[in-house]
Amino acid sequence: MDDTCIFCSIDRETLAENELAFAILDRFPAATGHSLVIPRRHVLTMDELTGEEALALFALIRQVKTLLRERFGPDGFNIGINEGEAAGQTVMHLHIHIIPRTRGDVENPRGGIRKVLPCRRRYRHGEGPA
Amino acid sequence: MDDTCIFCSIDRETLAENELAFAILDRFPAATGHSLVIPRRHVLTMDELTGEEALALFALIRQVKTLLRERFGPDGFNIGINEGEAAGQTVMHLHIHIIPRTRGDVENPRGGIRKVLPCRRRYRHGEGPA
Repeated sequence: MDDTCIFCSIDRETLAENELAFAILDRFPAATGHSLVIPRRHVLTMDELTGEEALALFALIRQVKTLLRERFGPDGFNIGINEGEAAGQTVMHLHIHIIPRTRGDVENPRGGIRKVLPCRRRYRHGEGPA
Repeated sequence: MDDTCIFCSIDRETLAENELAFAILDRFPAATGHSLVIPRRHVLTMDELTGEEALALFALIRQVKTLLRERFGPDGFNIGINEGEAAGQTVMHLHIHIIPRTRGDVENPRGGIRKVLPCRRRYRHGEGPA
């Protein structure tokens, strides 16, 4: 536990929780329902997780997706982690973003989380990113 | 197994693999070393994974990050999943993107995978996304 870490001393209602992890709504949501799934233990990256913690996070991600489907009926999700400042991490306690997506919320959703970086080349017809 | 699925009949050298999952380099990399970690079983989303498969993917993500650190020395990673066409998924077999990041590769990396959607508001000084 780190006294200065906002995820070690959380002051918000949780969306869901289990013994090793908890979930909250993001304070600066990229989309309605944008949530964070967070291990209780103060770790920087997923490299430091135990198998038990990984499974607890995995279970909670599924539970949060179910909740978000019931509340907001999204058409998809982006689920992901920013590891390191160069990757956009600003709170140095591991957290997994769950961003609900809706058809039409961007003109061309293709690529999804690839958009952390500008596109390097254009896809030819019939090609495309996975 | 789906005969029409490019991840069920992979024709590329794997970066690493285990009994339940394998990793390959992405064909349309967003950054050098951009890799995909993929369960062998044809599932659409993480909701269909068994606990064993989840742990196998988790282990492989860590292994691939180690490989990428050795080869390319990145400063961070974005790790994530696009679930559903609305979220940018184009191959309908679950795959986890591992995108190596380098300091300075974008002007302001803050936010990371939040960038799947345009920014809804500006952060005030001292505030910021997690």
